[in-house]
Amino acid sequence: MRIGVLGTGIVGQTIGGKLVALGHEVKMGSRSATHEKALAWVAEAGARASLGTFADAAAFGELVFNCTSGRGSQDALAAAAAQLDGKVLIDTTNPLDFSNGFPPTLFTGGTDSLGEQAQRLLPSCRVVKALSHITASVMVDPGSVNCGDHDALICGNDAQAKAQVSGLLQEWLGWRRVRDLGDISSARGIECYVALWIRLMGQVGSPTFNIKVVS
Amino acid sequence: MRIGVLGTGIVGQTIGGKLVALGHEVKMGSRSATHEKALAWVAEAGARASLGTFADAAAFGELVFNCTSGRGSQDALAAAAAQLDGKVLIDTTNPLDFSNGFPPTLFTGGTDSLGEQAQRLLPSCRVVKALSHITASVMVDPGSVNCGDHDALICGNDAQAKAQVSGLLQEWLGWRRVRDLGDISSARGIECYVALWIRLMGQVGSPTFNIKVVS
Repeated sequence: MRIGVLGTGIVGQTIGGKLVALGHEVKMGSRSATHEKALAWVAEAGARASLGTFADAAAFGELVFNCTSGRGSQDALAAAAAQLDGKVLIDTTNPLDFSNGFPPTLFTGGTDSLGEQAQRLLPSCRVVKALSHITASVMVDPGSVNCGDHDALICGNDAQAKAQVSGLLQEWLGWRRVRDLGDISSARGIECYVALWIRLMGQVGSPTFNIKVVS
Repeated sequence: MRIGVLGTGIVGQTIGGKLVALGHEVKMGSRSATHEKALAWVAEAGARASLGTFADAAAFGELVFNCTSGRGSQDALAAAAAQLDGKVLIDTTNPLDFSNGFPPTLFTGGTDSLGEQAQRLLPSCRVVKALSHITASVMVDPGSVNCGDHDALICGNDAQAKAQVSGLLQEWLGWRRVRDLGDISSARGIECYVALWIRLMGQVGSPTFNIKVVS
């Protein structure tokens, strides 16, 4: 499949690298068509990897991952809006504000979410929140934590898009448990959890962990 | 032990009832000394249960649980401030705003927390955030979920107070896994999680669940 990845950070590089390794063609998008980190990633990832602007990556992808920073998300999506029409956008962003140092605070505050903002900005795009609540290495290798026995959390307004994303999380990335939390407003819950994730990371002593919902 | 419970809702009733059943003396505090729900609880809980004002309950307790609503917490603690001096206060509150219906939003927003507000209001009191991230029945019966194999989360500034709370969670209530997330600022993470808890409750179809941190 042809896949667009918006953002050149560790999440974009990790997801993009995994998808290339699985045999997909991936275009990494950034503000400029010649972003230094995207160039380095393409050199590393090989022949099925390419780079371009946010709009180039969105146009290229049959499926698009939003892997920008939370603060950069709206501008990136606005730059690619016309190319995202009708497509499934997997939103992995978190509303982290590092302006006061570490630990970061949240800038959406539980009354809105980046997932909802993306869906409002792109009404014809099918936004699915997914993968935002774990570290990049676990996103693409859930088996590295507790033999894969823990939860992926997704939400979105389009049932067909969620079914597609749930399927690719399982078939491409190896997730065994995918929980659909409902419409895109559930992104508030998923994104707020990152405030706990940060504290758990300190206690666990590593970002390589996740939660398993038990009842 | 003599224990004060601030608040007459389901959390206060459930924790108070469990502590009485364990043989402790419990005074439930509310705005009035003759609160209808506290009277009903005392009639149900029996001879070791009593009621009074917030200040009465705090004065009575060698240990005090704050089981008020998030919105009511500061007023309740202010009313009992002199009686909480030097004591351990277990804060179970959540910053839930139901003014726009269900699902509620959070009113602290991840840049502050009820736990920190309590500690600032009561600098000589030793506040330990605990039990706020599960439903009342699970607080006092963790074995009802996944055979008890899931996490209690606590935080606070006083190591001795946290050790006492961790001990009583295990010995009195049966918690097997207690994670100390650090100082009271970690209450931001624990309280923000409730936004995810609400969405998980919808997916699980019951409030009787919890998370297990796996690595």
